[in-house]
Amino acid sequence: MAVMYDRVAVIGLGLIAGSLFYASRRAGLVGEMVGFARSEETRAVAREIGLCDRIADSAGDAVEDADLVLLCVPVGAMEQVAREIAPRLKPGAVVSDVGSTKGAVIAAVSPHMPSGVHFIPSHPLAGTEQSGPRSGFAELFDNRWCLLTPLPGTDESELAKYRAYWEALGSNVDEMDADHHDLVLAVTSHTPHLIAYTMVGVADDLGRVTDSEVVKYSAAGFRDFTRIAASDPTMWRDVFLSNKEATLEILGRFTEELFALQRAIRTGDGAHLHDYFTRTRAIRRGIIEAGQDTDSPNFGRNKP
Amino acid sequence: MAVMYDRVAVIGLGLIAGSLFYASRRAGLVGEMVGFARSEETRAVAREIGLCDRIADSAGDAVEDADLVLLCVPVGAMEQVAREIAPRLKPGAVVSDVGSTKGAVIAAVSPHMPSGVHFIPSHPLAGTEQSGPRSGFAELFDNRWCLLTPLPGTDESELAKYRAYWEALGSNVDEMDADHHDLVLAVTSHTPHLIAYTMVGVADDLGRVTDSEVVKYSAAGFRDFTRIAASDPTMWRDVFLSNKEATLEILGRFTEELFALQRAIRTGDGAHLHDYFTRTRAIRRGIIEAGQDTDSPNFGRNKP
Repeated sequence: MAVMYDRVAVIGLGLIAGSLFYASRRAGLVGEMVGFARSEETRAVAREIGLCDRIADSAGDAVEDADLVLLCVPVGAMEQVAREIAPRLKPGAVVSDVGSTKGAVIAAVSPHMPSGVHFIPSHPLAGTEQSGPRSGFAELFDNRWCLLTPLPGTDESELAKYRAYWEALGSNVDEMDADHHDLVLAVTSHTPHLIAYTMVGVADDLGRVTDSEVVKYSAAGFRDFTRIAASDPTMWRDVFLSNKEATLEILGRFTEELFALQRAIRTGDGAHLHDYFTRTRAIRRGIIEAGQDTDSPNFGRNKP
Repeated sequence: MAVMYDRVAVIGLGLIAGSLFYASRRAGLVGEMVGFARSEETRAVAREIGLCDRIADSAGDAVEDADLVLLCVPVGAMEQVAREIAPRLKPGAVVSDVGSTKGAVIAAVSPHMPSGVHFIPSHPLAGTEQSGPRSGFAELFDNRWCLLTPLPGTDESELAKYRAYWEALGSNVDEMDADHHDLVLAVTSHTPHLIAYTMVGVADDLGRVTDSEVVKYSAAGFRDFTRIAASDPTMWRDVFLSNKEATLEILGRFTEELFALQRAIRTGDGAHLHDYFTRTRAIRRGIIEAGQDTDSPNFGRNKP
């Protein structure tokens, strides 16, 4: 494939930035990729393993002459980075981010963007429970969705080009406004993560069941929760603080439903439970049909 | 390996029974396995695909002359089955079950067992979101735990033999009392399943986010929940009704913790969130070290 951006800067060198580097290289989309991370140790690891073509010593140096700047830091760090890079951005550059919430990132970043720079927020719905500079891989975005939440008045040709970049990375791309994005993600990602964190914490607290028993006997249900709850704590703290309103709304609905099921258990209302569980099965089938997961049992952990 | 039981009967022909058949055959543990399921359609499928050496037309016929009888029906069906097979059991036979709760199964089954028959409850901690006669496979129990909850006074040599059978199927085996089993499982399996069911139901209910959006954009968090929530509705209804006390206790702890995290989000207490999320990460590491899961990212759905 042809080079789409001659020089790309990635700020933050975790799972997403690393995967952007490997996926861009796989498809030959980028002339040179320059990276920066605030932690000296992370920069040293990146240099050691050849993550990025070059590692800069400041965010400002990294974005020098870059055609595309990708902010891959936790949402709570976006404003500080935007402030640092703003005076060094090349006129006409595209700035984007990969944050999990969009309203808060737009509020943090856009006031700092010089005129003539195109800010196009994005969010790849891809991740694993791993983090850090060694966690990226080229296939992370393959057949996953990337959501763009362009601001009103965004340059159409830069938007189309940035969209094509994500498609070339392997993603499917959709556009929506930032508020709707934040509600959708509160349902599909943020609240489920909070619930998983909570359940894992409860298990750890319980005096009469030892941690070793929890670990030994964690069958499918709990094991999947621990995987979710192993995700990066800083990233997730920032997600909840920056998507407060939608998360609290969905949490309210969740506890309402949970109390209804709890009541059905206490009163022995088997019909209510059976109906509820039958309905939820259908959603799973939809996800498999939409190609967003495999139907091989147990995610292929056991091979039939 | 040598044949351990000349004739084995399995009652109920779902995921566990099917896997028992294939795993027993793989290791040559059983002379003949006879199966029965209440549904005529299930029996027809079993005959068609060669599940079991022979399919009987009644539970009583199936257990005729069997040395080992395995009850693989939902917990709520155990009492009826126990009543049906009791008069046909061979003196000295071992009867066991694979139910997810043990106190309720013991209460349902043991009053019907004739003297001279050995009832040894068991629970393999293995499963997938699939169910039905086509869902079993030989590797299901490999390196998973099987918990035995023997009653006081159980014949030691029959217990040792039955334990060795599970080990030969590929499992690790532990023994504990039924009450403790039910509490441990409420934490590691039953409550997590209820929570996953609830979250999937909430997503389905939400008017402003379409099902199609939920399905398309379900990233890791929600996707794992839908897998759990796709499990067999009848089995899970019976689990909650038969492990009411422990499940309600753990649910109470869960909502208490959830409310504390919800409050931290509303008040913007990032330190509380970060501390909590850091602590839950450690449990995950324990599970990987205990060999109960893989640390390959995303369960190997994306290969690095």
